[in-house]
Amino acid sequence: MQRYFIPASSWNENKVVIQGNDIHHITRVMRFVSGDKIICNSDTGEAALCEIIEIDHEQVVAEVLKWLDEDVELPIKVAIAQGIPKGDKLDLVLQKGTELGAQGFIPFQSKRSVVVWDNKKAEKKLKRFSKIVKEASEQSHRNKIPEVKQPMTINQLIQESLHYDMKIFAYEEEAKVKDYRTFGSILNQIDFGQKLLICVGPEGGFSSEEVNELKSNGFHAIRLGPRILRTETAALYALAAISYHFEEMET
Amino acid sequence: MQRYFIPASSWNENKVVIQGNDIHHITRVMRFVSGDKIICNSDTGEAALCEIIEIDHEQVVAEVLKWLDEDVELPIKVAIAQGIPKGDKLDLVLQKGTELGAQGFIPFQSKRSVVVWDNKKAEKKLKRFSKIVKEASEQSHRNKIPEVKQPMTINQLIQESLHYDMKIFAYEEEAKVKDYRTFGSILNQIDFGQKLLICVGPEGGFSSEEVNELKSNGFHAIRLGPRILRTETAALYALAAISYHFEEMET
Repeated sequence: MQRYFIPASSWNENKVVIQGNDIHHITRVMRFVSGDKIICNSDTGEAALCEIIEIDHEQVVAEVLKWLDEDVELPIKVAIAQGIPKGDKLDLVLQKGTELGAQGFIPFQSKRSVVVWDNKKAEKKLKRFSKIVKEASEQSHRNKIPEVKQPMTINQLIQESLHYDMKIFAYEEEAKVKDYRTFGSILNQIDFGQKLLICVGPEGGFSSEEVNELKSNGFHAIRLGPRILRTETAALYALAAISYHFEEMET
Repeated sequence: MQRYFIPASSWNENKVVIQGNDIHHITRVMRFVSGDKIICNSDTGEAALCEIIEIDHEQVVAEVLKWLDEDVELPIKVAIAQGIPKGDKLDLVLQKGTELGAQGFIPFQSKRSVVVWDNKKAEKKLKRFSKIVKEASEQSHRNKIPEVKQPMTINQLIQESLHYDMKIFAYEEEAKVKDYRTFGSILNQIDFGQKLLICVGPEGGFSSEEVNELKSNGFHAIRLGPRILRTETAALYALAAISYHFEEMET
């Protein structure tokens, strides 16, 4: 069933008032009429089966038929810090990362980022990012839309990392050192509800200064398999492995 | 270091004769000259550190300096059978699936495939597919290039599946039945070297006839996390989970 994320301010007891871009989708793309059923998600995580009771070009009103008791969120809270990559790779990370359960995304300017974040285009870009994660949340039936933060420097990212219970970064060289800890041993240490920050470098990986800085600030280096992954594949591997570990491994 | 897959027929004791498209990459893209070092992979899985000793527009000759004792292949052999999806999604599955260690790909015509495989364009398409998996193999430092099979019908796929030790298909509805077996319990049953076939439906998923047919031919239905994944994301989740299970979980 089609699903829409509606801000909490648009809910009034058992009525939902839908406005903005969703109107086009409801009336033109899906061609819904009064009496049709949709699922509405509040941005606080609740979801309800609703029936459309009023429909026009300005707004759609839907009535709650039944509150849904569903939760498909990952049992741990995962944020992806992605070194700003070239082209539209960040779009792919946002779309697929949302499908795979990320709770947030933090683009950051890494030393080897070829692309420099353009503040003049920032507003437009962040608007596109919001659209991508909202649509991917609806498509994948998420309870919550992930947050996309403003791009930050690596120093700001390290400040931000103080809010997390565990911090890791993708760095395949690390697997060659003696006291290497596997990704599995890290995940075994995380309890349900805890916050994990996963940091992925841009195309050229992290510089050695960045590696040292991350390590001295409590980030563990992990390997994501022995093959060399492109930057946009690394976060997807990490999220799939986390889902497998916490949601699909029990026998 | 840059890596090239060179057919076994181009190896002569400790010399490798490189021809075709790789010449452009070596001379124009990488601007290599005599004395530069590259890694050459034979399509039988061996790899060697080589030095370029002759270079012109027709061919490049490289000499083996050292045979490399590296193996980054997944410990189990995984083939992805992908219901033919829309647009360029199959390209993404091939590229990312190669990075993540798939040993082969089998496109198949599923009942809900919107796109019908056009036999007139088949040669051109398969050529592009070969290029994608070759380049992704080089980039991810694979020992072997995955094979992309000619598209087949679901009945041909079921015939093909007789060559596999374990067969699964992505079908989230299955998680709701009582005797559901998790993805983890399936992977626990597979030994190193065994062959696993993973079958993913196109955008609309499998029809109920296809589900019944797969089940009655020994395919196990599995869930890839509780969120709804797009068709092109499913294979990537499965491969990342397999890598995690067999390569990164041990503590």
